[in-house]
Amino acid sequence: MKILIINSGSSSIKYQLMVMPTNEVICSGMIDRIGLETSNITFKTAIGSREEMLPIPNHKVGLQKVANMLLDAEKGVIKSTSEIAAVGHRVVHGGSDFSDTVKIDEKVKAKIKQLFELAPLHNPANLEGINVAEEIFSSAVQIAVFDTAFHQTMPEVAYKYAIPNYLLTENKVRVYGFHGTSHKYVSEKAIDFLEHNSKIITIHLGNGCSMAAVKNGKCIDTTMGFSPSNGLIMGTRSGDIDQSVVFYMIKNLGYTADEVNAVLLKQSGMLGLTGYSDLRDIEAEAEKGNKECQLALQMNAYRIKKFIGAYAAVLNGLDAIVFTAGIGENSSYMRKLVCTDMEYFGIEIDEEKNQIRSKAIREINKANSKTKVLVVPTDEEYEIANQVYQLIQN
Amino acid sequence: MKILIINSGSSSIKYQLMVMPTNEVICSGMIDRIGLETSNITFKTAIGSREEMLPIPNHKVGLQKVANMLLDAEKGVIKSTSEIAAVGHRVVHGGSDFSDTVKIDEKVKAKIKQLFELAPLHNPANLEGINVAEEIFSSAVQIAVFDTAFHQTMPEVAYKYAIPNYLLTENKVRVYGFHGTSHKYVSEKAIDFLEHNSKIITIHLGNGCSMAAVKNGKCIDTTMGFSPSNGLIMGTRSGDIDQSVVFYMIKNLGYTADEVNAVLLKQSGMLGLTGYSDLRDIEAEAEKGNKECQLALQMNAYRIKKFIGAYAAVLNGLDAIVFTAGIGENSSYMRKLVCTDMEYFGIEIDEEKNQIRSKAIREINKANSKTKVLVVPTDEEYEIANQVYQLIQN
Repeated sequence: MKILIINSGSSSIKYQLMVMPTNEVICSGMIDRIGLETSNITFKTAIGSREEMLPIPNHKVGLQKVANMLLDAEKGVIKSTSEIAAVGHRVVHGGSDFSDTVKIDEKVKAKIKQLFELAPLHNPANLEGINVAEEIFSSAVQIAVFDTAFHQTMPEVAYKYAIPNYLLTENKVRVYGFHGTSHKYVSEKAIDFLEHNSKIITIHLGNGCSMAAVKNGKCIDTTMGFSPSNGLIMGTRSGDIDQSVVFYMIKNLGYTADEVNAVLLKQSGMLGLTGYSDLRDIEAEAEKGNKECQLALQMNAYRIKKFIGAYAAVLNGLDAIVFTAGIGENSSYMRKLVCTDMEYFGIEIDEEKNQIRSKAIREINKANSKTKVLVVPTDEEYEIANQVYQLIQN
Repeated sequence: MKILIINSGSSSIKYQLMVMPTNEVICSGMIDRIGLETSNITFKTAIGSREEMLPIPNHKVGLQKVANMLLDAEKGVIKSTSEIAAVGHRVVHGGSDFSDTVKIDEKVKAKIKQLFELAPLHNPANLEGINVAEEIFSSAVQIAVFDTAFHQTMPEVAYKYAIPNYLLTENKVRVYGFHGTSHKYVSEKAIDFLEHNSKIITIHLGNGCSMAAVKNGKCIDTTMGFSPSNGLIMGTRSGDIDQSVVFYMIKNLGYTADEVNAVLLKQSGMLGLTGYSDLRDIEAEAEKGNKECQLALQMNAYRIKKFIGAYAAVLNGLDAIVFTAGIGENSSYMRKLVCTDMEYFGIEIDEEKNQIRSKAIREINKANSKTKVLVVPTDEEYEIANQVYQLIQN
């Protein structure tokens, strides 16, 4: 069964065509800079890749262009759009309504639209992707996979804020959590690897960064809250910060609320601390002796350590910590910083194993480490395809 | 040596006259509702107490009234204000300038004034108390003891936020921490009791609530940050909350920034969750089966547990946790909730010992508990008097 995965962002579309249940990737690619004269589109199959630069004014033109590439007589991979059985859409915010993957109908679309105000940067683009896909791949089942769904098992004690109750009941202000597809995928892989249900902490370090406490396969707490802006330190996002700083900047420093929000989302995090937002640059600078970069990396690791401790407390135990996503899978430097001076939690990293680069799931702790330290490469596209496949089968 | 301790708030003055180094309390009391027609003044000595209701328009009139009571021919305790060698002032915010107790001069007063914008509710009242005390107790040395001072040993990795560096260097936005006098006092008492320098976590649960990680007697991290509004859940303060909630309330719910700040400081915390702000009422309701009160208590304890875990991580170990202040010293209910399901940290509370009410420092863990659980009554007035005394002696 051919399933097309679409991850539609505000100015980009990532796509991947897969055969399930064999998990074969037929082709993949992305369009970025939608709306500009210099949009870029890539198309990659097992036998080669193409890249074109052309103006793509909107998502509809972009997705039609993808369909044309898929259908291309010479270099294409399908003969008719009807070969695609289902389109799986990544949707960032499912609110409290969606704790699972669902077939998209008008009601689901209306709910995704209601959640615009909770995810103004993501849900509108996700819905646009759905609308366009319904036209172009009209014979396919359209299915939504929510980034928040995995976290819907959190208990009230973890998802409630200590604010007046009407803000929850009327305005839906609570912890939602994000990167759920990744936390679900890597926690399941880790449980398979460990061969038992366990108390594990998943650490997703990519463009966005978040952690989840997972008990017997269910998420019980996570670092991102009402929005994807808090918790860990990220490339340009501050993560957790005393809310009084917001009021201070508005009242005493003359910022508007929007300006403060922009500072905390776009000029903070590793960028605000170092002038660089790419971790590879920061690590290279740190190794050259740049003190700001060294401190920023230590701050980043320090906050991860604190959440490891916090989650060990709510789990009342710890079997494994799991690193994943771009930084988590590739930065031995960051993993080392996080795992240093953590013997109290039975965490002891093996320096040599930590240096190994691989696409495979692997254990990088010392043989006698009480707590396992795993690297589990994430695969959100596979996870979405699999959830779509499971839903269709049932 | 007679030392007068003054804790001057926005509409109240607490005072205590002590003899040091014998730690004898000659008298104590408070004035509240300053500025109203129905101000209340109390005056308590070893032989009895007085209470008067009268209009007290400002701090100067209030403190003059205190002086008159101290000097009263019949019921007073001193013959002349010159008997008072020193006045110790509690000052909430010392910024990065004061890591220790100091004699007050014009420079110190100017610094306290510069910090008004960081502590608008507290520092102006503290300075007013100093100015008035200089007039009335003109022969006494005036000394400032800062609530932030104990936390000035925190490393950069703990006190820096992940925001653009100019906000720290130019605008002094960083973690300061509060309740320092209490955390210092109880951590020192705990170290004496344990008979060794150790890795301990102090948990101050009163009107305000905060925790500190203390390593070899020095604070290395604390839950309150730039202001006393974040960290733990408090009577009316939310404690930690995703900053995006602030922006959401402003942008989507029509609040002004000041209104959001007021909601988070005055209508949140236990009050927002239950309708009650006094923990005794909430516990009584919870015991009667009130679900909101039960949940609020669990949320409160849940957050404390997470910080215990986080601080065990930055300490890389844990010898003792220490409960103090009104709730910490008196609520066996809250202590029990915090210590339940914490065996992973070697925390096992002894149910019977937990029920004992006492003014003494005590151990309430089971005999075989790896981590000690202590109750250490705080005494901020004594700590201030002692610091004042030590400063004068040296």
